[in-house]
Amino acid sequence: MSDQHASPLVALVRHGDGSVEELGADRLDEIDQRAAVAGTLVWVSALSPSEGDIEILRREFDLHALAVEDLHKRQQRPKLDAYEAQHMVVAYEVAEAVGSGLSEIHIFLGAGWLLTVSWAPTPLVDAVRRRFADGTDRAGTDTGELLYALLDAVVDSYFPELDRLSDRIDALEDRVLEGDADRGSLREVLAVKRRLLELRRILAPMRDVANQLLRRDVDLVGPAALPYYQDLYDHLVRVLDQLDVYRDLLATVLDARLTVASNSLNAIMKRLTAFTVILMVPTLIAGIYGMNFDRMPELNWPLGYPFALALMALAVVAAVAWFRSRNWF
Amino acid sequence: MSDQHASPLVALVRHGDGSVEELGADRLDEIDQRAAVAGTLVWVSALSPSEGDIEILRREFDLHALAVEDLHKRQQRPKLDAYEAQHMVVAYEVAEAVGSGLSEIHIFLGAGWLLTVSWAPTPLVDAVRRRFADGTDRAGTDTGELLYALLDAVVDSYFPELDRLSDRIDALEDRVLEGDADRGSLREVLAVKRRLLELRRILAPMRDVANQLLRRDVDLVGPAALPYYQDLYDHLVRVLDQLDVYRDLLATVLDARLTVASNSLNAIMKRLTAFTVILMVPTLIAGIYGMNFDRMPELNWPLGYPFALALMALAVVAAVAWFRSRNWF
Amino acid sequence: MSDQHASPLVALVRHGDGSVEELGADRLDEIDQRAAVAGTLVWVSALSPSEGDIEILRREFDLHALAVEDLHKRQQRPKLDAYEAQHMVVAYEVAEAVGSGLSEIHIFLGAGWLLTVSWAPTPLVDAVRRRFADGTDRAGTDTGELLYALLDAVVDSYFPELDRLSDRIDALEDRVLEGDADRGSLREVLAVKRRLLELRRILAPMRDVANQLLRRDVDLVGPAALPYYQDLYDHLVRVLDQLDVYRDLLATVLDARLTVASNSLNAIMKRLTAFTVILMVPTLIAGIYGMNFDRMPELNWPLGYPFALALMALAVVAAVAWFRSRNWF
Amino acid sequence: MSDQHASPLVALVRHGDGSVEELGADRLDEIDQRAAVAGTLVWVSALSPSEGDIEILRREFDLHALAVEDLHKRQQRPKLDAYEAQHMVVAYEVAEAVGSGLSEIHIFLGAGWLLTVSWAPTPLVDAVRRRFADGTDRAGTDTGELLYALLDAVVDSYFPELDRLSDRIDALEDRVLEGDADRGSLREVLAVKRRLLELRRILAPMRDVANQLLRRDVDLVGPAALPYYQDLYDHLVRVLDQLDVYRDLLATVLDARLTVASNSLNAIMKRLTAFTVILMVPTLIAGIYGMNFDRMPELNWPLGYPFALALMALAVVAAVAWFRSRNWF
Amino acid sequence: MSDQHASPLVALVRHGDGSVEELGADRLDEIDQRAAVAGTLVWVSALSPSEGDIEILRREFDLHALAVEDLHKRQQRPKLDAYEAQHMVVAYEVAEAVGSGLSEIHIFLGAGWLLTVSWAPTPLVDAVRRRFADGTDRAGTDTGELLYALLDAVVDSYFPELDRLSDRIDALEDRVLEGDADRGSLREVLAVKRRLLELRRILAPMRDVANQLLRRDVDLVGPAALPYYQDLYDHLVRVLDQLDVYRDLLATVLDARLTVASNSLNAIMKRLTAFTVILMVPTLIAGIYGMNFDRMPELNWPLGYPFALALMALAVVAAVAWFRSRNWF
Repeated sequence: MSDQHASPLVALVRHGDGSVEELGADRLDEIDQRAAVAGTLVWVSALSPSEGDIEILRREFDLHALAVEDLHKRQQRPKLDAYEAQHMVVAYEVAEAVGSGLSEIHIFLGAGWLLTVSWAPTPLVDAVRRRFADGTDRAGTDTGELLYALLDAVVDSYFPELDRLSDRIDALEDRVLEGDADRGSLREVLAVKRRLLELRRILAPMRDVANQLLRRDVDLVGPAALPYYQDLYDHLVRVLDQLDVYRDLLATVLDARLTVASNSLNAIMKRLTAFTVILMVPTLIAGIYGMNFDRMPELNWPLGYPFALALMALAVVAAVAWFRSRNWF
Repeated sequence: MSDQHASPLVALVRHGDGSVEELGADRLDEIDQRAAVAGTLVWVSALSPSEGDIEILRREFDLHALAVEDLHKRQQRPKLDAYEAQHMVVAYEVAEAVGSGLSEIHIFLGAGWLLTVSWAPTPLVDAVRRRFADGTDRAGTDTGELLYALLDAVVDSYFPELDRLSDRIDALEDRVLEGDADRGSLREVLAVKRRLLELRRILAPMRDVANQLLRRDVDLVGPAALPYYQDLYDHLVRVLDQLDVYRDLLATVLDARLTVASNSLNAIMKRLTAFTVILMVPTLIAGIYGMNFDRMPELNWPLGYPFALALMALAVVAAVAWFRSRNWF
Repeated sequence: MSDQHASPLVALVRHGDGSVEELGADRLDEIDQRAAVAGTLVWVSALSPSEGDIEILRREFDLHALAVEDLHKRQQRPKLDAYEAQHMVVAYEVAEAVGSGLSEIHIFLGAGWLLTVSWAPTPLVDAVRRRFADGTDRAGTDTGELLYALLDAVVDSYFPELDRLSDRIDALEDRVLEGDADRGSLREVLAVKRRLLELRRILAPMRDVANQLLRRDVDLVGPAALPYYQDLYDHLVRVLDQLDVYRDLLATVLDARLTVASNSLNAIMKRLTAFTVILMVPTLIAGIYGMNFDRMPELNWPLGYPFALALMALAVVAAVAWFRSRNWF
Repeated sequence: MSDQHASPLVALVRHGDGSVEELGADRLDEIDQRAAVAGTLVWVSALSPSEGDIEILRREFDLHALAVEDLHKRQQRPKLDAYEAQHMVVAYEVAEAVGSGLSEIHIFLGAGWLLTVSWAPTPLVDAVRRRFADGTDRAGTDTGELLYALLDAVVDSYFPELDRLSDRIDALEDRVLEGDADRGSLREVLAVKRRLLELRRILAPMRDVANQLLRRDVDLVGPAALPYYQDLYDHLVRVLDQLDVYRDLLATVLDARLTVASNSLNAIMKRLTAFTVILMVPTLIAGIYGMNFDRMPELNWPLGYPFALALMALAVVAAVAWFRSRNWF
Repeated sequence: MSDQHASPLVALVRHGDGSVEELGADRLDEIDQRAAVAGTLVWVSALSPSEGDIEILRREFDLHALAVEDLHKRQQRPKLDAYEAQHMVVAYEVAEAVGSGLSEIHIFLGAGWLLTVSWAPTPLVDAVRRRFADGTDRAGTDTGELLYALLDAVVDSYFPELDRLSDRIDALEDRVLEGDADRGSLREVLAVKRRLLELRRILAPMRDVANQLLRRDVDLVGPAALPYYQDLYDHLVRVLDQLDVYRDLLATVLDARLTVASNSLNAIMKRLTAFTVILMVPTLIAGIYGMNFDRMPELNWPLGYPFALALMALAVVAAVAWFRSRNWF
């Protein structure tokens, strides 16, 4: 991938005989001739293209003005746009290396050619391209099949992310059930919540894209490819279902946090009651023997003082026992 | 079932005359000949098939690549996939013996044959197969009727599970209403919640599968079988309705838990107020008679000390009575 | 109804001339002859039929296997099942006499006959039958009109139930607003919640049944009867709307309960603060005059002791006044 | 309106030439002759009709049995019922004079005639009738246009109600934000909630009525009137949107109330901590100088007593300062 | 824009050759002649038109009575109204200068002309008009393209608003996580909530307008413009998705606020317990040595007093250490 950074535009041409030829950035103007040859499939991939690169792509592939605008603006919703002679799909691959954890990818499809533009590492999509370059993939020269391979790779990137989220929620649940209700766990609840909302916002329109492809609103998917797109759609629905489950669990964890805090408060109040009473009782006894009455027999007892101390100790022990018996201490 | 573990693949061939023949794993290559005979129905069942077994099944039944992938990956969403000459249904039977409590089952249907693959005990589905082997079931040689028998068995497995969940929620409600708000009940709330979410995630797509069969999107269900599939669909909707009721009840139980904790806290605070006041009053009296004024008549009374003690006792009794009257103690 | 218990199966035959004849359980085999006569309408009603009675009904009316299974199992979801030559409707009448408060009723309709099966008192449905027997009802010999009369009676049973629920929620709201937050009201909240969920679970599918009849998916409803079924549907929607309103109110009552508990806690804490301070101040004064300094002028005052007591009383009064002024006491 | 009470049935006949004639209750039998004249429009309005009045109306306008039943029962859901030769619309005008704040109105439409029945003041609908009597309204002799005028008047009555609700919620929000969490505001929250639910329950079906008229399910609305009914529908959707906004705000206010109570509790606890410590410190000092040790130098100081008092005062000041610095007092 | 205030009605006429002519308010009666010329596009913009101005516009453009009413009433829901020979679109641009932050704009479209009416600054729409006046915009003489340019400008105004809301919610989250739970943050929560609800109420119907245009219910959008309107629709859906995310986050922040308050309360109660105990222990010791027993050896010790003080200090240190070890202080 290192040389890809050096030259952001790379074109792979797969000929009808299965051989794959790589065109450098300087020979991109040959693309349309190649794509026009029946049985040939051209895949141009661009990583973080400059303004100039985008202009080259626009000219070479006759991209629609809106599609070009999207390339400049980025942060598009996943969507399937149908232009006159081409289609554009926007998708997101989960990539931990990226700040937001999501790597945007724009896929353009035309007759005999496919263009992918991304701005950050997309490991699974890159693996598809490597297999395409090696000729070790299933897809022949059909852009529809190649699109499936790309979208399938993208969707596969969400399953490890689901596992990570599941682990985080399980950990949160354990922390809360063990009585941890500090600010760190709250921060984590909010972080997981944000992640869930973000993924949902990306995946719901991706499911709609899969559904559009499945309902054959566009002529990209042939009958033989239908089960594959059905499978893709099922996977996306599964991921979304799982996100909803997580969201529900997270809400319950947040609620549980509140009730754990209530329990904790109750425990403290019980203890406070106990401490107060336990210390007030000997204080009262000391106060009694500090009274200045002329005739207080105990005061004249030879062992009056030890008796008073013993009485205090006894009172403390009795109070502790009483609170223990009521489970308040 | 013990011998089934020894040989994971078992084929039952029911001939037109009702007689049933069992083919061992070594004669699976005869299946297609048998299935081709009109009036014959072949049911192959596989328990935890190895890679090699799956390859045999793939070759013998000409399984679609995606279906084979699903057999390898498992943990599929319940679904009905239509391939060229066959259908696949994924369903889950509730089975307490399994870790997750749900036993996955893949059902393939073709002309004259049916293949079921599972990886854990499925008692109700096994019972259907025993009746098939005995010839004591209603289904003739129609795969559609056999599919109904299987799905009906699967759905029946959810009703005892519903009863268990109902019992757990009732028990939780009783615990909470009796003032129990400890961490154990919270753990149970979260566990029931997880179970409800998990079942919902399985059952909603199973209802959709029943609906697809009912709407006859696929040609598996004949007109005579329609009332049966309608019944199946009704049962699934009933289970889902019940899950929603449970979910709602559980949310209310969690809310009730919070208000029980509030009540408990209020009770403790009242008691704390009472204790504090009850002990502070005699302490104050002792303090008063501990003052060093030259002229404090009570101090010289012969019975001053007993009088002071009696005054303290009286104050305590009065305070207790006052708090009792206000329901604070 | 007492003799009905003795003989659970009763057949009423209304002839074309309006006269009504009652057939005992021993003459049920004449039913199909009677039903076959044009202009004749036969209504068989069964209360808690035995296995044998169900078998008789099955044979006589040629009931579908699934319908018979439903008779044995009971606790069906309200539904409209269409079999080849007959229809079945499952509905529930509110009946306080029954444990669950809901009395299940299965209604079968065929050409010239109607069969109702119930297992508990159904006062409003029984009233329809009495009017049928007297010939004082509107319905002629049309099963569709009779079905409307039955369903209308069933739906009418929900309105008093709504009133009862409304009263219970109003009472709860009053209790909560008056500061009652004890466990009894919580138990009542949960009970009303359960009742609402139960009714919703019954009524939503009953509305769907009314809608199916209205959309004329089945040929039971003639054009003249349409406004009547529209009315039925409107009533069911009204009941469901009202249930949703109650549910929303109940949730708010539960929330209000929490805030009432918070208020109550705040009040107790204010009072606790006040009590503590009020009693600590004279205790401090007593402590001061209990100090053993050689020169404490007040100690030698002739009225030092009354002065000290007055000082304490003054301090208490001042503290009380101060707290009162801040609305803390 | 006073004479209207005297005679609940009033008929207005607008002739083709625009002149309007009023028929008293005694000449209602002339209505059908008048309505039959082309270009003539008869509007009969009934206020709190007696049983006898309803019977007269039934006979004169050939009302459907269900419509008559609705007139007797009242409290119908807003709806549009289509009978053979006439339509019935049920709507509610907001009227503060009525107990529930909602005044029910039944509108019947036939060829050349319109009948409105109400049981309480309906100021805006009455204004439409006054304009009809004066001939100052837009509507010609078309019942569809007159229906629009009536429904538009009804919907207009909801906007001031929305403003009142908005004011109440704003006032509640201000009260809560100013820390008021007493029972009065809770009562108000519940009252506003009930009002919102009640209005929603009325307005959602009214929107559906408007939509039915708009979709031309019935032949009441001509193409020229469509924009008017679209406008009516838009207004109803706007009111419903606003109700949803209010509902959401109210829920947030109730939540905010809880957090305000928490804040208040925290403030009290801080203060309690402060008071307790501030008073315990001088009490401890007094206790120390009340000890009976033989040699306590301070006791013999000439200014020992003022010194002790000063020490106490200093301790109090220091404690107050410390708590102030931590914002606890 | 200053001269625009002076004369609220300004007409721009773009001729077929691209030249643009500005007509003053006094020459508005020439508009229809100009608009009738093929290839000419007239754009009249009105800012805060007076009653008289509206009457002029009504006459000149033959506006529908309902549209005129909307101009008088304002505060319409975003909508697309189709009248006989013209369409009206109501939209809102975010404008910070306006009190509500939303600037209403009514757009009328007819053959060859477009009329925009607004009552407050609409910077982005004004920019479109400036580009129209300069001839530097893409749109030719097609009202459909001009409508897109206007709506695109309006929608673009929401993105900075989203960023502002995001910043406010992030700031709130930080404040809450840092333990700030004062009334200011609550006020801010409610303010953001209101803003979200208000934007949602505006944007949901604007999305519906975009969808109506896209589905070509009206003949305003040609096939070439479809991708543009699809883009518009996508943007609106994106904004609405984002609003839902914010709403969800805000609810979580409010919940988090409650748990932060619980934590804070727990911390205070722990501290209170600690303070109470720490001060009660030396008080008890002082009380003990204040007892008046005849024989208390410590009292006669030469260093008895320092011993007692040291004992108190030791007790305090021990208590502090014990509470520290339990993380209570």
